Amino acid sequence: MNENKKIPYKIYLEEHEMPTQWYNVRADMKNKPAPLLNPGTGKPMTVEELSGVFCTELAKQELDDTTAYFDIPEEILNFYKMYRPAPLVRAYHLERKLQTPAKIYYKFEGNNTSGSHKLNSAIAQAYYAKNQGLKGVTTETGAGQWGTALSMACAFLELDCQVYMVKVSYEQKPFRREVMRTYGANVTPSPSNTTEVGRKILAEFPGTNGSLGCAISEAVEAATSQEGYRYVLGSVLSQVLLHQSIIGLEAKAALDKYDVTPDIIIGCAGGGSNLGGLISPFMGEKLRGEKDYQFIAVEPASCPSLTRGKYAYDFCDTGAICPLAKMYTLGSSFMPSPNHAGGLRYHGMSSVLSQLYDDGLMEARSVEQTSVFEAAEQFAKVEGILPAPESSHAIRVAIDEALKCKETGEEKTILFGLTGTGYFDMYAYEKFNNGEMGDYIPTDEEIAASLSKLPKVNG
Amino acid sequence: MNENKKIPYKIYLEEHEMPTQWYNVRADMKNKPAPLLNPGTGKPMTVEELSGVFCTELAKQELDDTTAYFDIPEEILNFYKMYRPAPLVRAYHLERKLQTPAKIYYKFEGNNTSGSHKLNSAIAQAYYAKNQGLKGVTTETGAGQWGTALSMACAFLELDCQVYMVKVSYEQKPFRREVMRTYGANVTPSPSNTTEVGRKILAEFPGTNGSLGCAISEAVEAATSQEGYRYVLGSVLSQVLLHQSIIGLEAKAALDKYDVTPDIIIGCAGGGSNLGGLISPFMGEKLRGEKDYQFIAVEPASCPSLTRGKYAYDFCDTGAICPLAKMYTLGSSFMPSPNHAGGLRYHGMSSVLSQLYDDGLMEARSVEQTSVFEAAEQFAKVEGILPAPESSHAIRVAIDEALKCKETGEEKTILFGLTGTGYFDMYAYEKFNNGEMGDYIPTDEEIAASLSKLPKVNG
Repeated sequence: MNENKKIPYKIYLEEHEMPTQWYNVRADMKNKPAPLLNPGTGKPMTVEELSGVFCTELAKQELDDTTAYFDIPEEILNFYKMYRPAPLVRAYHLERKLQTPAKIYYKFEGNNTSGSHKLNSAIAQAYYAKNQGLKGVTTETGAGQWGTALSMACAFLELDCQVYMVKVSYEQKPFRREVMRTYGANVTPSPSNTTEVGRKILAEFPGTNGSLGCAISEAVEAATSQEGYRYVLGSVLSQVLLHQSIIGLEAKAALDKYDVTPDIIIGCAGGGSNLGGLISPFMGEKLRGEKDYQFIAVEPASCPSLTRGKYAYDFCDTGAICPLAKMYTLGSSFMPSPNHAGGLRYHGMSSVLSQLYDDGLMEARSVEQTSVFEAAEQFAKVEGILPAPESSHAIRVAIDEALKCKETGEEKTILFGLTGTGYFDMYAYEKFNNGEMGDYIPTDEEIAASLSKLPKVNG
Repeated sequence: MNENKKIPYKIYLEEHEMPTQWYNVRADMKNKPAPLLNPGTGKPMTVEELSGVFCTELAKQELDDTTAYFDIPEEILNFYKMYRPAPLVRAYHLERKLQTPAKIYYKFEGNNTSGSHKLNSAIAQAYYAKNQGLKGVTTETGAGQWGTALSMACAFLELDCQVYMVKVSYEQKPFRREVMRTYGANVTPSPSNTTEVGRKILAEFPGTNGSLGCAISEAVEAATSQEGYRYVLGSVLSQVLLHQSIIGLEAKAALDKYDVTPDIIIGCAGGGSNLGGLISPFMGEKLRGEKDYQFIAVEPASCPSLTRGKYAYDFCDTGAICPLAKMYTLGSSFMPSPNHAGGLRYHGMSSVLSQLYDDGLMEARSVEQTSVFEAAEQFAKVEGILPAPESSHAIRVAIDEALKCKETGEEKTILFGLTGTGYFDMYAYEKFNNGEMGDYIPTDEEIAASLSKLPKVNG
């Protein structure tokens, strides 16, 4: 680091310094992520096959593992300028509170109405749908960030937006629903009886709280059964990681301005969209042998796909109508405890991140939710921002690493992704404030049971 | 405007360009605001008298109408750096949507967890309390922004924080309460039976929804009956306008960087903290005869203190235990309709703004709430940000003025204050989304009835 430049509390890029291309980390991977497979034939999906579900341009992005940079269309750039650049924050107050010699930075993606980084991919996916002349898009949402982001993007482009919201979230977060409605979206609690797969799940599990996997199935069915509609997804997919690379590219540009190189890069990991986006350009340097970084994926102990799952082909959705993806997975029938309030509930992990993890290029840790909320509260009190439970997983490990530095005296530079705010997660905070929050760790038997149902293509 | 400089979507000041002093517009006013009066003696309050309720330093700021600039203490500056500078946004997307030749800018103060500009004064007031060696502070909150802001400031400084929250808000906004609790505040619905004045009000009006005036009385009693406590207030007071001048100073510095001079400056007005802060430095230029601007205060038709109130001494609180202030008022017993969802419910207006308005230096307009929510929704869809109902009053008039420009072809430059976000106001948005929102305008008789109870000091 150039000691002559005083680092401000927040680094904002100038508008003309904002990235104009997304970076596709797959282009620099020697071991490419395994291809998506057609669940019927067991063969790799083609653009044509994918185009029935996704917009054609997005299907192409999904399958392209050689093009390193994609130009960001001007209309998307102009939308980005509405809420980006996101600040890179030096956590001086947190450092002081922890009395650590570590230097802590976080890339804050929550300063927009969706409250998270999800908007980065939502506008891209809505744009390509609009550009293809579609009427609308369908999607699922769990905690609600993705659904809100997509509603905002669709409102901007005047595209119809149909959201299947996991039932338990729909009930715990009525105000999330109202934000989406204000942006003109149609929100249905899932499972619902508006789809065949929804009716089937309701018949089999009456009174179910729903799950992401089930909401995905409903949204895909809704897309393929209406003319002029396609399905869009907020995480897991490689196209999403591509769009989310804007996070890492901006963070890197901001650090480079001040000659700062992080030692450790930390992100929470559910489906992997934020972590993949944050680390992409740094991982690119590592893959090309230019620099080395320590990457840490943080997942909840209650849904530990990387740390306790299996690297295998699995269904992406409960209804098994999506392509098969090779990923670290707990099995598509795995359900985290309903008492888990901290988000990141998806059973599998992005194929890109799964491959990087399998190649030993990235570490993973799982953390328990009460310790996550403790970190969230500590962070909120000194850094001002009330973080999303999901983001707080990364805060937990960033604090742990900073405290290690305090013991060893090392002045490491830590960068973590603060993906969003917790303003619509107060139900979970209320439980924590009332001392009613517990920790939930699945047994080996539970995980083995859901893994026993992996598709046959694994042999 | 210098046409050579392209105006970005968002202008952020650099950290070193941030203001380091607050500006006290009273210093440049020929007709000073009328002094606060002791309700017992009818004589102007002294610093000594005020120091029983307020911290001494804040009492001095309250009564100082000659010092133009106050240095901002370093600890406050460092807190400001956590969430400031706030962006000055060029509303390109809104301009395009309206097809107006007007150039629209807004100063966005909602990018912090309190969700509004209130944090600017909260940290200042908490700092002076801490500096005086106090144990804690008490306050009231209506919509909840001020209580949240104060909780954040107190958590940062490790000061106890007791909030009396207007009962109807406490019930409609349980998540606001949880944010405050997460920051360690003690939140009591008002009226409560924890104070003498609360018990009296409850006895007189059982089942009351509470009001700001009543919560103020409770908070003041709580402060004066506990050792080591003082009362703090988020609006109306001249000290608050002083702290909030940071809004206008930053906005002006950002505009000056691009040689932009606004023609019209618009702000919503409840107690006046945001409007006063936004216009202060511009008003200073007008008062000194350096430049001219059109200023517009926007208030709800359901609580129209400037447009339909009387300029007179009045009680600041329902319990009549605070000093008397000369202000445009509807009478301290005035209660806006419980169906009014748009905030800005205080019966009176800042003495500073009242005097400026009385001197013809500022205009005022009242707007109805359904038209306010229509403007909010229109704004949200193209500018991304879901605005607070309060802030949306300013949006309404900014859009009206921009549409006038469309008719006349004038290329006016409009600046308005976007004070906050509506994430905790989804109850109101839900009513609007469901078409259940109405407009509520008090009758002349209602206003006359409450004005008939003005204090005798008016003669």
